[in-house]
Amino acid sequence: MEAVTVSKIPVIEMFGPTIQGEGTVIGVKTMFVRTYGCDYRCSWCDSAFTWDGTAKNKVQMMAADEIMNELLALAGDNFDCVTISGGNPALIGEGMGTFINLLHERGIQAAIETQGSKWQEWFNDVDVLTISPKPPSSGMTTNWEILDNIMSKMENLGRSTHSLKVVVFDDKDFDYAKDIHRRYPNVQLFLQPGNDDVTEEGDISARLLGRLEWLFNKVILDPEMNRVRVLPQLHALIWHNKRGK
Amino acid sequence: MEAVTVSKIPVIEMFGPTIQGEGTVIGVKTMFVRTYGCDYRCSWCDSAFTWDGTAKNKVQMMAADEIMNELLALAGDNFDCVTISGGNPALIGEGMGTFINLLHERGIQAAIETQGSKWQEWFNDVDVLTISPKPPSSGMTTNWEILDNIMSKMENLGRSTHSLKVVVFDDKDFDYAKDIHRRYPNVQLFLQPGNDDVTEEGDISARLLGRLEWLFNKVILDPEMNRVRVLPQLHALIWHNKRGK
Repeated sequence: MEAVTVSKIPVIEMFGPTIQGEGTVIGVKTMFVRTYGCDYRCSWCDSAFTWDGTAKNKVQMMAADEIMNELLALAGDNFDCVTISGGNPALIGEGMGTFINLLHERGIQAAIETQGSKWQEWFNDVDVLTISPKPPSSGMTTNWEILDNIMSKMENLGRSTHSLKVVVFDDKDFDYAKDIHRRYPNVQLFLQPGNDDVTEEGDISARLLGRLEWLFNKVILDPEMNRVRVLPQLHALIWHNKRGK
Repeated sequence: MEAVTVSKIPVIEMFGPTIQGEGTVIGVKTMFVRTYGCDYRCSWCDSAFTWDGTAKNKVQMMAADEIMNELLALAGDNFDCVTISGGNPALIGEGMGTFINLLHERGIQAAIETQGSKWQEWFNDVDVLTISPKPPSSGMTTNWEILDNIMSKMENLGRSTHSLKVVVFDDKDFDYAKDIHRRYPNVQLFLQPGNDDVTEEGDISARLLGRLEWLFNKVILDPEMNRVRVLPQLHALIWHNKRGK
């Protein structure tokens, strides 16, 4: 008998059903699975607990079927979509491929967001793939060679549900988004205004809508941006900075 | 010499560029062309000036090329999408087909919203077709035979950008939306919370976000609604009840 290796996945939180607040499938009912660990350290990360060590003792190493069972326990048949976020879920290997197969066996679609710093074979099976390169305000530096390679693989998949997303805090970020749009003109680009304070308590909707209007007006004035789409984070407009929503 | 008949289009307003606030192409830069006249009289219509007579003297009868020229004068090359709304633009005949051809010659996409009370041959050429049947709160009654026929034609086009949209004000409207979803399960259904007061001045975003949260929670709790999408009217969150935005 050979030993069977089960690739476990570091999970920091699972919640739902809720409504996807951003990107290609904005407005769709989804469960969330958030993985632990990130190769980036974005200055404004809204999920820094996935990498800054403060929640390290809450990480559970789970096999694909254990995650599936936990989602079913949480929501029964009350979802057809699972969003895998992080941290950077692209750091996870074959275990995630197994999990996505389990979702597909039940007719559930898999959506994933990652910054475009690493490709995994299981990306080929993802229904909604969002590559979200980080603009200058994040403090991170884009490795264009790696991103070009990932975008080439994604474009070869030819899925209209796959897209790019750039969070925009300021004019420099907007210029970065334009560079991204020029570089990958055939991929739908979403722009999302940044949340300047992810720790503020209470109702932050007025501040966020002000930033959305600012970004709307930037795009409205710019003929190079005729085909991008500008969307807010709906969950933040409604549930503000609360976790697990 | 034979006389050439040019089908003119009754236009009540044109504006943009702005951002599409709702539906399939939410977040995309677009011009708006609003046609005059409607076969419906929805109690909560946000564009009643298109049919209640109050703006009748502002209607311009325009040929397709005149509308095209006016859009170019307004926005130059700063748009790749035109949204045709009403009133009910499906009341317009071949003139609209000519206009859509002019858009396509320039690589501009045509989006249209109509209630599903009438089909026109030029629907076949529309890039983004939204059929928006009106729920009980509107005071209108759906003719299911006509709607079935229109949905069948739309589904035959096989475009992933075509969709249904139902505005939801209350529980009865939500039940109506469920009926629509059961009847046309293969067409993407968007739900949109209604704006209870389209004349209120000032910032109405808190009220609208409250209604979005209510609708989110209705969908979250209902396993029959796993595949619908719930979206607000972004333009109303930002520009409130102002016209021409």
